[in-house]
Amino acid sequence: MTRTAAIIGTGVIGAGWAARFLLNGWNVTVFDPDPEAIRKTAAVLEAARRALPMLYDTALPPEGSLTHCATISEAVEGADWIQESVPERLALKRKVYQTVQEHCRADAVIASSTSGFKPSDIQGCATRPEQILVAHPFNPVYLLPLVELVATDKNPPESVARAADTLTGLGMFPLRVRAEIDAHIADRFLEAVWREALWMIQDDIATTQEIDNAIRYGFGLRWAQMGLFETYRIAGGEAGMRHFIEQFGPCLSWPWTRLMDVPDLTPDLIDKIADQSDAQSGALSIRELERKRDDNLVAILRALKTRDAAAGARIKTHEATLWPERTATPAPLITVRRTVPIDWTDYNGHMNESRYGQVFSDAADDVMIRIGADADYIARGLSYFTVDIHIQFRAETHAGQMIHVETRVLESAGKKLRLAHRMLAEDGTLLAEAEQLLIHVSLKTRRACEPAPEVAARAAALAKATGES
Amino acid sequence: MTRTAAIIGTGVIGAGWAARFLLNGWNVTVFDPDPEAIRKTAAVLEAARRALPMLYDTALPPEGSLTHCATISEAVEGADWIQESVPERLALKRKVYQTVQEHCRADAVIASSTSGFKPSDIQGCATRPEQILVAHPFNPVYLLPLVELVATDKNPPESVARAADTLTGLGMFPLRVRAEIDAHIADRFLEAVWREALWMIQDDIATTQEIDNAIRYGFGLRWAQMGLFETYRIAGGEAGMRHFIEQFGPCLSWPWTRLMDVPDLTPDLIDKIADQSDAQSGALSIRELERKRDDNLVAILRALKTRDAAAGARIKTHEATLWPERTATPAPLITVRRTVPIDWTDYNGHMNESRYGQVFSDAADDVMIRIGADADYIARGLSYFTVDIHIQFRAETHAGQMIHVETRVLESAGKKLRLAHRMLAEDGTLLAEAEQLLIHVSLKTRRACEPAPEVAARAAALAKATGES
Repeated sequence: MTRTAAIIGTGVIGAGWAARFLLNGWNVTVFDPDPEAIRKTAAVLEAARRALPMLYDTALPPEGSLTHCATISEAVEGADWIQESVPERLALKRKVYQTVQEHCRADAVIASSTSGFKPSDIQGCATRPEQILVAHPFNPVYLLPLVELVATDKNPPESVARAADTLTGLGMFPLRVRAEIDAHIADRFLEAVWREALWMIQDDIATTQEIDNAIRYGFGLRWAQMGLFETYRIAGGEAGMRHFIEQFGPCLSWPWTRLMDVPDLTPDLIDKIADQSDAQSGALSIRELERKRDDNLVAILRALKTRDAAAGARIKTHEATLWPERTATPAPLITVRRTVPIDWTDYNGHMNESRYGQVFSDAADDVMIRIGADADYIARGLSYFTVDIHIQFRAETHAGQMIHVETRVLESAGKKLRLAHRMLAEDGTLLAEAEQLLIHVSLKTRRACEPAPEVAARAAALAKATGES
Repeated sequence: MTRTAAIIGTGVIGAGWAARFLLNGWNVTVFDPDPEAIRKTAAVLEAARRALPMLYDTALPPEGSLTHCATISEAVEGADWIQESVPERLALKRKVYQTVQEHCRADAVIASSTSGFKPSDIQGCATRPEQILVAHPFNPVYLLPLVELVATDKNPPESVARAADTLTGLGMFPLRVRAEIDAHIADRFLEAVWREALWMIQDDIATTQEIDNAIRYGFGLRWAQMGLFETYRIAGGEAGMRHFIEQFGPCLSWPWTRLMDVPDLTPDLIDKIADQSDAQSGALSIRELERKRDDNLVAILRALKTRDAAAGARIKTHEATLWPERTATPAPLITVRRTVPIDWTDYNGHMNESRYGQVFSDAADDVMIRIGADADYIARGLSYFTVDIHIQFRAETHAGQMIHVETRVLESAGKKLRLAHRMLAEDGTLLAEAEQLLIHVSLKTRRACEPAPEVAARAAALAKATGES
């Protein structure tokens, strides 16, 4: 049954929550006294509808219904999840919870988006404090996975676990913050950086742009994939985290910043950090972590390059200096259903021709799973390789467009598997056709071989069902 | 003429510099008294050789020569650039500069990788302080573009500008730090975050892993592309930066962190920040900035997804819950020369078949430039679209492999352009062949039309030169 989320307060954060729930198939009711609430929510929802589906290589569930309500009581009645994102005033939040609890189900989750208050603050003198907790997200809520989940002793552990499951089901990463602390975890870092930035600007050390460049061309790229400690663990070189702290820890007592209150680096604290880092990352050697970091950075930087943005734009500028001289005379089975993502478009503004090939490759992967030539099969050392594909491009395809592929198995005799694909727009327009020949191979010898009998049987059955010629 | 960089000190940073210079075609001499220096440098260089070329869609210049030297004097003699990356002890650095200046060219740049010292500290009582400055890079030096460039009044502005040009030529982003300040800019932020992290760990608020997750699933993704102020500018919504500061600035006086020394948010300071943010980002509306941010985040997250890493792994897990049920019964012209990047490999461990298509699409783009159907031509509303491609896969191709494409123009009559491509490994192994038909189109009518005469003439000439059949 479709679940319902009630969104109380539809600023940037509340509207982002509404989008996250709706696009994951929940029905959503919203309440905000702002007369502009409908327009503002629609704007956030439009951005989310465009971006979120692009993260996935298959379609999201059908969108839920959105209902703007005139009162809190109307919005929360019968809701499974109530998300409060009203301004950061404790008295206001407590008043909202009082009204919410008068009308909501006793088993509903009431989650606050507060970035500053502790859950015991907001539970306050509520009728049923056990159903109130903190679920603090990050802007844009519809794209960033992090949500800090903070509870108190009054919240039954099993209901906190259920709340975490719900957030995971929305594609988020619920970080269980174990200690109640003002501003939770992430915002304390943001606060420290923000304060340092304010000093630098006040003292004319750097401008906003210089500060942003110092972040996005450097440690920002590291933090998008590993965070602080795993990065430093690598910086410690082969000797790891302990070496890093011993080498760089003492710098903390230098007069580097205006903020001087520093914990003593006692042997106990050093042990604690090193042990935690071991538990977190010790399964991989420094070399393996470094390889992982580099691979991630390559992928992130290439992604930024396709957008001509930040560090990626720098790479493009540099690359322009590297090209050689180019003178003119020298020498229906539906196997895919998805949105075309932004990074698939080319300079003509339409889907790059190679991505048609990717869509047909994905279609063949779907057939592989259907006939049992799946990850387990590959682990057994068997797979199909494409040896030939012929693609005919029929119409342009654009980012954000929903597409699907119809596939027929034309031939499944022995080592051969011949597929015919048709890529279609939502309105049925034919976008491209392909005929693809795959050969069954042994991944050990890298040579053709007969498929396993059960795979051959399922391929034959699929050929029969989809119209073998 | 090939330039030479002398690297003094080959720890993680120095060896990273050596790799950056070498892979950009410089000759490199290195000196480090560590008996392990050769092995350690080789390890960093191996990682750099694997990763850096993957950032580019064309080949890097031929690698320079690497020479390990027994003395500083031998290393720096005749060098154009001397990069010092010895341990952070001022007396040691000054002693190194003394030796360096006894043997190096007077017009060489002597750059220090110091993360803490000001350039006037390290110039100290040097013979020629004017040739010494700070060029502080970030690990991994061969991938991250940021380098903080800090000079003093003693450095002639034109030589600082030349140093910046040299760094840009290495694919880096030289950030001119205008004020001499301990730890420059970026490390002050790292320091603030590090200190806050140490408190959290000491107080048992969070573990290293929880802290890393709080960073990489949230603001780390924002900072990889926009940094702090442009992100907050968006968070202010339609009212922008000023609104953000007015709304969130007061929170700074809350007892959020253990670090309490906070500048007064005077109207002057607010004006200053808002004005700087306007100068930096005011050319784009909040909606446009938001769109840009979302597109960048989509691209970064998709990149992390191909690596099954950090936030990308979360998306994959979530996506697994979204798939529908799949039951069993329903004359050589070289147009491309490049390394296969890590994000082009599939689950079989070889280059995904769609990327063969991308390589051939890139080969056709190269032909477009050669015949004058380039960006300017597209701006005039004319282009070629691929209507048909037939790819035959001959051999597996792997990440890190150098590939190239030989292209022939088979036919260039009227609206038609027919190309034949052969993708080859470095040793000449044939990896794939393709025949591709392009049709000349008007981008206004989206229909076929005759190419401009000069384009037709260049296409015909290229067909003649490459062996029209």
